[in-house]
Amino acid sequence: MSTKRNIIVGQSGGPTSVINSSLAGVYKTAQERGFNKVYGMLHGIEGFLDEQYVDLSTQIHTYMDIELLKRTPSAFLGSCRCKLPEIYESPDTYEKIFSILDKLEIEVFIYIGGNDSMDTIKKLSDYAIVHGHSQKFLGVPKTIDNDLALTDHTPGFGSAAKYIAASTKEIIRDALGLSYNKENITIIEVMGRNAGWLTGATVLARTEECVGPDLIYLPELTFDMDKFTDTVMNLLKKKKNLVIAVSEGIKLEDGRYVCELSGGADYVDAFGHKQLQGTAAYLANYLGAKIGCKTRAVEFSTLQRSASHIASRTDIDEAFMVGGAAVKAADEGDTGKMVVIDRVSDDPYMAAAGIYDVHRIANNEKLVPREWINKEGNFVTQEFIDYVKPLIQGSYHPFMVNGLPQHLVLNMNNK
Amino acid sequence: MSTKRNIIVGQSGGPTSVINSSLAGVYKTAQERGFNKVYGMLHGIEGFLDEQYVDLSTQIHTYMDIELLKRTPSAFLGSCRCKLPEIYESPDTYEKIFSILDKLEIEVFIYIGGNDSMDTIKKLSDYAIVHGHSQKFLGVPKTIDNDLALTDHTPGFGSAAKYIAASTKEIIRDALGLSYNKENITIIEVMGRNAGWLTGATVLARTEECVGPDLIYLPELTFDMDKFTDTVMNLLKKKKNLVIAVSEGIKLEDGRYVCELSGGADYVDAFGHKQLQGTAAYLANYLGAKIGCKTRAVEFSTLQRSASHIASRTDIDEAFMVGGAAVKAADEGDTGKMVVIDRVSDDPYMAAAGIYDVHRIANNEKLVPREWINKEGNFVTQEFIDYVKPLIQGSYHPFMVNGLPQHLVLNMNNK
Repeated sequence: MSTKRNIIVGQSGGPTSVINSSLAGVYKTAQERGFNKVYGMLHGIEGFLDEQYVDLSTQIHTYMDIELLKRTPSAFLGSCRCKLPEIYESPDTYEKIFSILDKLEIEVFIYIGGNDSMDTIKKLSDYAIVHGHSQKFLGVPKTIDNDLALTDHTPGFGSAAKYIAASTKEIIRDALGLSYNKENITIIEVMGRNAGWLTGATVLARTEECVGPDLIYLPELTFDMDKFTDTVMNLLKKKKNLVIAVSEGIKLEDGRYVCELSGGADYVDAFGHKQLQGTAAYLANYLGAKIGCKTRAVEFSTLQRSASHIASRTDIDEAFMVGGAAVKAADEGDTGKMVVIDRVSDDPYMAAAGIYDVHRIANNEKLVPREWINKEGNFVTQEFIDYVKPLIQGSYHPFMVNGLPQHLVLNMNNK
Repeated sequence: MSTKRNIIVGQSGGPTSVINSSLAGVYKTAQERGFNKVYGMLHGIEGFLDEQYVDLSTQIHTYMDIELLKRTPSAFLGSCRCKLPEIYESPDTYEKIFSILDKLEIEVFIYIGGNDSMDTIKKLSDYAIVHGHSQKFLGVPKTIDNDLALTDHTPGFGSAAKYIAASTKEIIRDALGLSYNKENITIIEVMGRNAGWLTGATVLARTEECVGPDLIYLPELTFDMDKFTDTVMNLLKKKKNLVIAVSEGIKLEDGRYVCELSGGADYVDAFGHKQLQGTAAYLANYLGAKIGCKTRAVEFSTLQRSASHIASRTDIDEAFMVGGAAVKAADEGDTGKMVVIDRVSDDPYMAAAGIYDVHRIANNEKLVPREWINKEGNFVTQEFIDYVKPLIQGSYHPFMVNGLPQHLVLNMNNK
């Protein structure tokens, strides 16, 4: 007779193509290891505090459902952007959380997310130890931005990079098919406010049958409009068709984002976040006016984080692996830890799950190292390519139903 | 001994995911029917006039190359946007064309493109008949916009519709995963300046596990900002998460495009075309300010016409079929004709190639009929769905190499 009790898992932060593969990994390993119930909190810790949760066995009925979950983008359970208060600031919050955990007979709490989620794991495991609670708290990393420290890379990044590289290839084909004796510039805008990992991934479009992007500008370096214009004009002397990738977060020396230069009213959303959209549109208009040639802007927008129909198999498998590894670690007594991906070897690529004390995770972002960007600051180096390339390998075929990829979605009628 | 001489094929107009499948169909049928050489003109009639062409046997070596060509987006041979002058305006142009055709011993001239391309076929076949030239001229339709008359639908439309529907599903998942007790509006901008076929295709995201878009605005009807705002505010009382699809070409009653309202300088490209980008961004900003909720804009941009990695098998097959049918028709003596797709049956879906006199093709655009748009003008009807749904069915797996879809590209070293 199993003495194991229940487990609860939540998802937090921005969507990715593979955050549900981690959820699937948690569920499968929890079942295999004989946990009683596997609960999913709805909309992360925010929903949990409202006692919003679901017994996952009412949602995942078959192995096919697990496979479908692995192919479903965005947070199956719903996500949140919520940072827990410090323990001394709001002991009530913590008492409430632990009373719900006790009520649900939770033995293991797993949280899939980015930096804020690891902070949640740290606070809850600290609180549990100080107050003599027996629950284990484990973190599973996730972010398309790849800006988390300690882990070689983050689940979600590989699939976003694959979508970006494949789309860049298609855009380059599109541009080459059109231009004949005419200058033609395409500016591609990629996500990543401070970290250029995704923008750099456009380099992977450089293959045996594709020249790839001509210039790549990461947010790690200051962007100089004049230097940029000169570089473009010089390149146009050599080739008529240019494709340029820029990060949404490129900034001028004076600290202004390039997208702020468009002169329109600064668009600030309802939460006061400055919207960074419009960098490519601004640069396309600028070059069009300056050079008098045809230009166009392409923003990959939210599709780059949710296009699970072309997710990386490596990424899906690793996301699944770290989900399972978190359950295993907790089951073996770990708490206050984050599961990470350790790269065992580049060629052939091999990776394994590792584990780190969540207290060691500083809140700093992992940026692209200066030496992985070329001297001129307008391209990435071979080291960058060698690092990213393994992460986009392989595919899972979507389950196509009536011509479209099928997803597993929460069915509250089953609850 | 075959008495057949040579055939030449060209591509014109905007890229699609399947224009190369038509090229593959032309090539394969031309070979099977014993034509001597199959030439490809580079960048359509514009390149042809510069004597830019290639012997396709130097580019397509194997059946696998044909399969790869079917999976390659954009114009393999390069495209152009070129309308031939009237015959009486520039007889020299026509004399030049026919002297090149004679030099290359061309028996059949096939042109894959939209309205302008059919105009080219008409003029060349007229000229040939009047001047006693024996060449046959056949047109193969192509456009993502689906705005060509006489054909049930155009090759290229189904794949664009499939990409749009699949991406809309992923965007809806993305939005649902994020919002918890907060209002959230996503505006999706879809191509189609005058015809709403592609914008309407977002409706296909409504499946057994996805609610689909909430509102759909086509360019066929006048757009009313106040009515739009009221509709959105009423809907927000019922649900917190809205996804709205709009055509890039929606216009106010006074004739201004919605994207012109942003107040910035009108962006006109180097060719004097008004750029229509920015409709979704404008509406997202407008609603964000008006309602005070989180909004975001997604532009599908050029990816919707070049995302061959998720092309429709039905579309690829039909594009291949009409390419082959054009060769067959010419070989059997037809000239001055366009091959079309006739829908034989909706359920089960069956289609066959038909043929029309190119003189019957007026230059008017086929728009979405008023009765296929709901009374309120903010959604499409079941008839629309029944029409589009068969066209996105089935997939061809991309040939994945190093994690990315491989394409067949012109190799001028082989020439």
